[in-house]
Amino acid sequence: MNKTIAVTKGDGIGVEIVDEALKVLDRVAEKFGHKFEYKYALIGGAAYDKYHTPLPEETLEICKSSDAVFLGAVGGDKWDSVEPDLRPEKGLLALRKGLGLYANLRPATIYEALKSASPLKDYIVEKGVDILVVRELIGGIYFGDRKTYVEDGVRTAYDVEKYNENEIKRISKMAFDSAMKRRKKVTLVDKANVLDSSKLWREVVKEMSKDYPEVELDFMYVDNASMQLIKNPSQFDVILTNNIFGDILSDESSQITGSIGMLPSASISEIGIHMYEPIHGSAPDIAGQDIANPLATILSAAMMLRYSFDLEEEAVAIENAVEKVLEEGIRTIDIKEPKGEYVKCSEIGTAVAERI
Amino acid sequence: MNKTIAVTKGDGIGVEIVDEALKVLDRVAEKFGHKFEYKYALIGGAAYDKYHTPLPEETLEICKSSDAVFLGAVGGDKWDSVEPDLRPEKGLLALRKGLGLYANLRPATIYEALKSASPLKDYIVEKGVDILVVRELIGGIYFGDRKTYVEDGVRTAYDVEKYNENEIKRISKMAFDSAMKRRKKVTLVDKANVLDSSKLWREVVKEMSKDYPEVELDFMYVDNASMQLIKNPSQFDVILTNNIFGDILSDESSQITGSIGMLPSASISEIGIHMYEPIHGSAPDIAGQDIANPLATILSAAMMLRYSFDLEEEAVAIENAVEKVLEEGIRTIDIKEPKGEYVKCSEIGTAVAERI
Ligand SMILES: CC(C)[C@H](C(=O)O)[C@@H](O)C(=O)O
Ligand SMILES: CC(C)[C@H](C(=O)O)[C@@H](O)C(=O)O
Repeated sequence: MNKTIAVTKGDGIGVEIVDEALKVLDRVAEKFGHKFEYKYALIGGAAYDKYHTPLPEETLEICKSSDAVFLGAVGGDKWDSVEPDLRPEKGLLALRKGLGLYANLRPATIYEALKSASPLKDYIVEKGVDILVVRELIGGIYFGDRKTYVEDGVRTAYDVEKYNENEIKRISKMAFDSAMKRRKKVTLVDKANVLDSSKLWREVVKEMSKDYPEVELDFMYVDNASMQLIKNPSQFDVILTNNIFGDILSDESSQITGSIGMLPSASISEIGIHMYEPIHGSAPDIAGQDIANPLATILSAAMMLRYSFDLEEEAVAIENAVEKVLEEGIRTIDIKEPKGEYVKCSEIGTAVAERI
Repeated sequence: MNKTIAVTKGDGIGVEIVDEALKVLDRVAEKFGHKFEYKYALIGGAAYDKYHTPLPEETLEICKSSDAVFLGAVGGDKWDSVEPDLRPEKGLLALRKGLGLYANLRPATIYEALKSASPLKDYIVEKGVDILVVRELIGGIYFGDRKTYVEDGVRTAYDVEKYNENEIKRISKMAFDSAMKRRKKVTLVDKANVLDSSKLWREVVKEMSKDYPEVELDFMYVDNASMQLIKNPSQFDVILTNNIFGDILSDESSQITGSIGMLPSASISEIGIHMYEPIHGSAPDIAGQDIANPLATILSAAMMLRYSFDLEEEAVAIENAVEKVLEEGIRTIDIKEPKGEYVKCSEIGTAVAERI
């Protein structure tokens, strides 16, 4: 199989961790007889430094003419004083919009070998944590009207949370379809006791659920969800929610696993060019030291093989190699045992590649 | 001292837990020679059932002519099919607005005797959890414009998150003043990398902080805050945030203590009539069984004595009585030891009153 992959390493540790993932992808290509062509493009702070914009036109073009997009991470305090519209994060938001990446899939699972890393007590974790957050990614308050102005001499600012039924249907379909391949439960998280937009979500999702009689649908207010994730995470299968609540709850979900350096994500577009990236950020404080954990990025590569290229066997080969490495006790510093040894970012990448 | 207290028991367990708190207040009055006059008024579902509105004009009038408002809890599935604008919660929102309760103070602390109830591992909790969430309560997306309509044949809905500098200054002052009486640290939680309203919050709070040179101010994105609360809650002193983020993060904060049946709250108004209520909800599933935990409500009464009536000694008397009861192992079912005994709601109320 011949595939073209747009590779946007971004900032901070993005560079190192993507290099390790490419090492693993190269090994997969070699072993299974595929050809992956990488087209490198700048995004975030790295793009700003060179082109004075966090998403150069050229980068978007490269992504649009590739079969998938593989991203590291963007941002860093280096760009704190850059004007808001040119900050690294704005490049990521523009890329999401530009590719129409409407669904962000963020699985939160606990790795058997890393169970003790969860901040939650054992009796909670033992019941199992295996959640898929399905977050709407190109609508709502992230992309609604916004304005800062002076009203009667008083500084004022607003942002609009707005959704229409088509946006809600599209993301709900993704959630229900995902649930059908999992434990067949969808929890819609909203604030329908206060927000009109949330009421519309409930209405539309209820209608959609008629097409999925096997899926159990329930509703939860966002404040309660933030508690239930800690109290009893095993009750959740698929969490369906809007852009801003998804931002908050997916981070909370990944934190409770204690495996945040391990969690991949996929962003799905209607035009078929999906994007893959680790859940964690660019960690500028440890960048360039070859100590970052590249496993979330390597697992994002597995997700890419599965969802974009339909290469299930190859995806599983990567996932198994990662598990093997963990079981052998090969760890980066963030997931090592309190008194255990640790290896470098590049060493663990090599170790995974060798086990494929 | 003679004080008039508007008592709005509300729904579900609201009725039982308020009765226990009044028992304790009566004992305080007796012992310290005060006179508390209770003016009862309906709110929430109870008011809807009788007057077809969750906040009768009469209730608001009673509250406005009292020295403080003491609330149980509102809501329950019984009113699920009531039209949205008449739901129990709307009564609470209208009361907040009607009294101008702009600041919601929600302390999250771990009771020594209940330490083991936290869902977080001991090594995290041992570093200490003592957070005050200062949530803006009558602005933002809760009270902004909202609309549900059909646009080009497509159902659409929006809600507006809007703030002006005066609203931000008022709540920030509360946060900084609170921090001065605590560990002198304020963390502003927002989403300033995306929202215009959040940028205005940062700007105004930064300006305000000049008046509080002793207070350390830092900034955190809301997604990160939802992780940090679990990962390392001891880093927080005062969390200052808007209405919707405060709704989510204060519930998360209370959950990590494991003592949610123990946590009181105060809502502060500019006109001086403050409101006190437990953090937990109306728990309709256990209502009427005399098994609810009234301690959060009893501790809310202590907060009322302290903040509204300046009766510090009396407030401490209640707090000490509660601690004594806990130390003696007298527990309601929600906080009992796995194999321990438990007492009724009314028994623990009596036990607290007797220890004053
Ligand atoms: C960087 C930021 C704009 C982004 C978001 O809020 O979507 C990030 O937090 C994420 O979740 O991918
Ligand atoms: C009942 C509901 C409207 C309310 C809120 O969202 O403010 C509640 O969750 C709270 O936090 O007091």
